[in-house]
Amino acid sequence: MPIIETFINPNQERNYTIHIRMPEFTCLCPKTGQPDFATLFLDYVPKELCVELKSLKNYIWGYRNDGAFHEAVTNQILDDLVKISMPNFMRMRAEFNVRGGIYTTVVAEHIATNWTPPTVINLP
Amino acid sequence: MPIIETFINPNQERNYTIHIRMPEFTCLCPKTGQPDFATLFLDYVPKELCVELKSLKNYIWGYRNDGAFHEAVTNQILDDLVKISMPNFMRMRAEFNVRGGIYTTVVAEHIATNWTPPTVINLP
Amino acid sequence: MPIIETFINPNQERNYTIHIRMPEFTCLCPKTGQPDFATLFLDYVPKELCVELKSLKNYIWGYRNDGAFHEAVTNQILDDLVKISMPNFMRMRAEFNVRGGIYTTVVAEHIATNWTPPTVINLP
Amino acid sequence: MPIIETFINPNQERNYTIHIRMPEFTCLCPKTGQPDFATLFLDYVPKELCVELKSLKNYIWGYRNDGAFHEAVTNQILDDLVKISMPNFMRMRAEFNVRGGIYTTVVAEHIATNWTPPTVINLP
Amino acid sequence: MPIIETFINPNQERNYTIHIRMPEFTCLCPKTGQPDFATLFLDYVPKELCVELKSLKNYIWGYRNDGAFHEAVTNQILDDLVKISMPNFMRMRAEFNVRGGIYTTVVAEHIATNWTPPTVINLP
Amino acid sequence: MPIIETFINPNQERNYTIHIRMPEFTCLCPKTGQPDFATLFLDYVPKELCVELKSLKNYIWGYRNDGAFHEAVTNQILDDLVKISMPNFMRMRAEFNVRGGIYTTVVAEHIATNWTPPTVINLP
Amino acid sequence: MPIIETFINPNQERNYTIHIRMPEFTCLCPKTGQPDFATLFLDYVPKELCVELKSLKNYIWGYRNDGAFHEAVTNQILDDLVKISMPNFMRMRAEFNVRGGIYTTVVAEHIATNWTPPTVINLP
Amino acid sequence: MPIIETFINPNQERNYTIHIRMPEFTCLCPKTGQPDFATLFLDYVPKELCVELKSLKNYIWGYRNDGAFHEAVTNQILDDLVKISMPNFMRMRAEFNVRGGIYTTVVAEHIATNWTPPTVINLP
Amino acid sequence: MPIIETFINPNQERNYTIHIRMPEFTCLCPKTGQPDFATLFLDYVPKELCVELKSLKNYIWGYRNDGAFHEAVTNQILDDLVKISMPNFMRMRAEFNVRGGIYTTVVAEHIATNWTPPTVINLP
Amino acid sequence: MPIIETFINPNQERNYTIHIRMPEFTCLCPKTGQPDFATLFLDYVPKELCVELKSLKNYIWGYRNDGAFHEAVTNQILDDLVKISMPNFMRMRAEFNVRGGIYTTVVAEHIATNWTPPTVINLP
Repeated sequence: MPIIETFINPNQERNYTIHIRMPEFTCLCPKTGQPDFATLFLDYVPKELCVELKSLKNYIWGYRNDGAFHEAVTNQILDDLVKISMPNFMRMRAEFNVRGGIYTTVVAEHIATNWTPPTVINLP
Repeated sequence: MPIIETFINPNQERNYTIHIRMPEFTCLCPKTGQPDFATLFLDYVPKELCVELKSLKNYIWGYRNDGAFHEAVTNQILDDLVKISMPNFMRMRAEFNVRGGIYTTVVAEHIATNWTPPTVINLP
Repeated sequence: MPIIETFINPNQERNYTIHIRMPEFTCLCPKTGQPDFATLFLDYVPKELCVELKSLKNYIWGYRNDGAFHEAVTNQILDDLVKISMPNFMRMRAEFNVRGGIYTTVVAEHIATNWTPPTVINLP
Repeated sequence: MPIIETFINPNQERNYTIHIRMPEFTCLCPKTGQPDFATLFLDYVPKELCVELKSLKNYIWGYRNDGAFHEAVTNQILDDLVKISMPNFMRMRAEFNVRGGIYTTVVAEHIATNWTPPTVINLP
Repeated sequence: MPIIETFINPNQERNYTIHIRMPEFTCLCPKTGQPDFATLFLDYVPKELCVELKSLKNYIWGYRNDGAFHEAVTNQILDDLVKISMPNFMRMRAEFNVRGGIYTTVVAEHIATNWTPPTVINLP
Repeated sequence: MPIIETFINPNQERNYTIHIRMPEFTCLCPKTGQPDFATLFLDYVPKELCVELKSLKNYIWGYRNDGAFHEAVTNQILDDLVKISMPNFMRMRAEFNVRGGIYTTVVAEHIATNWTPPTVINLP
Repeated sequence: MPIIETFINPNQERNYTIHIRMPEFTCLCPKTGQPDFATLFLDYVPKELCVELKSLKNYIWGYRNDGAFHEAVTNQILDDLVKISMPNFMRMRAEFNVRGGIYTTVVAEHIATNWTPPTVINLP
Repeated sequence: MPIIETFINPNQERNYTIHIRMPEFTCLCPKTGQPDFATLFLDYVPKELCVELKSLKNYIWGYRNDGAFHEAVTNQILDDLVKISMPNFMRMRAEFNVRGGIYTTVVAEHIATNWTPPTVINLP
Repeated sequence: MPIIETFINPNQERNYTIHIRMPEFTCLCPKTGQPDFATLFLDYVPKELCVELKSLKNYIWGYRNDGAFHEAVTNQILDDLVKISMPNFMRMRAEFNVRGGIYTTVVAEHIATNWTPPTVINLP
Repeated sequence: MPIIETFINPNQERNYTIHIRMPEFTCLCPKTGQPDFATLFLDYVPKELCVELKSLKNYIWGYRNDGAFHEAVTNQILDDLVKISMPNFMRMRAEFNVRGGIYTTVVAEHIATNWTPPTVINLP
């Protein structure tokens, strides 16, 4: 797999959120060898490091000819991103294209052990 | 009814969610014998087992020539899926097509007795 | 008014939800005698009884030539449905068509005195 | 300004909500004298009085040739409506049309001092 | 950078919200020198001062020929606005246009140290 | 049936078009006696007379308690409007609400015998 | 197959159009035996006969347990409807649900040999 | 009425189209004196002159306190614009807000006597 | 490239249309080697042969690791499909995903030399 | 202005269409010096040359700090592209962002003098 690069979080004093949408994920079905497609949604609260987007694109591209089950690959991508960027919080959502009349989405989250989520401010 | 198959949850260390949408559910109205149609939404947090999608498709297909009331069949499908896959949490939502100018949706949930739902992290 | 019929709730062991949308409500304005139109949204958690849909359609139809103010009729329909079906929880939302450039919606709820709402499970 | 009229709340036993949308608000910009336009959203829980819609329409129409800043006029309309109808809760949201490539919305709320908001029931 | 101007908050007695959407933000990519585009969403609860819109437009326009990374510029704009207008609460959301098949959004918030967010009133 | 009124076409020198949408048509099914609902679209090129809107509303309201088949009532309304207003061209489109899982729309047109439709100017 | 019934066209003096949408067509794939689903759009200009909707519903329902290829079944339904109702013009459009990542729609038309389509009147 | 200004068409060698949408038209109903609202769509092929936008805005603003019937005002605005700018072709479309449950749109066109519309090029 | 298979057109007596949408086309950019994505729309009027969908899916899949320019590959796919299925008419439309802030779509058509397109019947 | 590059049309035997959408056009208002924004739609039928996309992006970027009126700049871009690529047909559509409550779009076309547009094939 290509290496995911990071850069120093330019604002480590506050919790803030980075949302990333990647509609061009494709891998192969381990059973049939045929292509699968998904849109990936990555949401995270950086700690000391941010994920560099060009290397993220290459990392995602690295699955193009890999066999991967829906549940396993979603957790795997989250694990890889967490390992490299050590965020306060990270969520990976993978919305797969329809297969056999069934639409499947897998969502996994990671919370840093010593991190307290900030109170949510809802405005009317 | 066809048997619902399962496979070992590839990541049992974290609570994660699987969302499944099946727009092709059809059964028969027990009163009139005429076809009913619904879109099923299955959302669950697996424990040790995940639901295998092809067998799920066949199980759903098994209702095609069955008589089934809206409220009963939604609870029945949830019960069958819970019995086989023993998830931490599972929700079944059935949005039925309009009949007599009325649109009906039924939603039922199951929570495992010893399971504590994780804190929801809302990001701005 | 036509009688609203009920049937025995087929699953009294769990709290589950029934959502009903009726886009064809019409009554008369008590001031002008002219027709009013609304879409009704009924959401409820049944206890021992479920609302039978055909009789509900006829009951709603019964307002066709009745004069009815927006606020009063919404509360009245909720009261009638609660009286007949004695649910754990019931909400009636009436979205009226525009009159005089103004769109009005009225929402009323009933909670059974001895009922505790279940904890909401939010999944990512 | 035209007088806002009220009528007796037909159901004072329960907290219920009235939502009103008025897409035809227009006033004048106090700086340039040119027309401003907004859609107003009024949401309230009545206590003893409900707001009469025809007089509300005339009251809103009364701003047509008035100069009014976005922030001030939203608070002013809320104050006027609260003073007349003394609701348990009232919210005014004003979504102004784009000016200079910028879209502005102002939202203000009033809660009666002795009123406890009811527990929100979220249904799946 | 052009100076952001303020004016006296016309209603300092209540917490209310101002939402501002600016679809015309553009700056330059510090790596490639090519243009970047974003829609900015500013939501704030004013304290003693409100942000004057024309000067805000000019301030945003001031980034047109500046190099700016997504994460840094979002935090920078929030910091500048907080410094000038000292609000009770302020949130800046920047939705950047797609680059390399990836859509990125950055969201940052500021809460005044001595400010208690009001209870959110959710109406059905 | 209430009488449809007309007024003198204020510009008889050019062919121009009037489009009218009425989402609140309701009549009764002649077979079952139950209510039917439709949205009516009236498009016409006036000659010497225009259709007065308030009387049109009352005329449409006149079908409220009449039994009427989809195909027949659409042609009947067109015939009545043509007889009263003698337009150069008139089209009536009735989009009925779903019944038995089937959505039906009926469209009928009238062209004055001595009228030549103007050349259509399509702009890119 | 259930018989399609007809009734006398109530207005045989003008060409007019009847549009029918049936979102609940289902048959079986002749290769795999698994269910297929489609939305049918029927558009026709009646001559002496109109298609009766309840019998049309039953006829469509008759394909529920039949094997049928997309191209063949669309032409077959058109042929059956033409044979029974002998319209001036009839079009059948079948939009099938996705299979193998591919969405297929088939459209066939019939024109009566001695029928001249009316000039289309396009209004601005 | 404010004067509509023009400027020299910068490209008089080809037929080209200018589309203008103005969602902020308001006038008064001549019968009731109450405000009416419309969105205006102006489409034209300039000849020697183009319509200047700021003066157009002021001209439209000039109807704010005028009584005006739907059909008459649409034709009047078209006539005024044609008289000033003498275009090859001009179309005015006015979509009025709902009144009495009825939505009305009026569309009028002007073609210069010696102008031949160019052949429309439709691309697949 | 995988072979595109065909089957005998089940209704060769009439011109009818088959629309196929394939949202899962991917190839490689010949310049950068990076993945490109497109949605393909195939519309054709079959003559003696229809395109078999499973082999079409495999053929499209065959481009997964090929370098291909937008304009060339769209024409190439059309040529291959025409050669195999010899249709009366065929159109290929390829909507590529955004690259460099630019969205590109290419559309090519083939008409059989001895085929006359049927008159288009437009219904109101 | 940056130079627009071209490449040899890979299929000069047939008329085919290339659609290009560029949502990131920005220039300056010649009167006020403030930024303007537009989405450009380029549709063309190439002859011997195709427009190279990267150089097109740079050319469009070249207007960033230029003053340009809506009507003039749309015609200018069309002229520049026609001069370089000598297409059979080319259309430029520029949809500008709202200014002063008014939305403006300008559309210009070029047809090669010796080119005959192909017959449009409309499929049902």
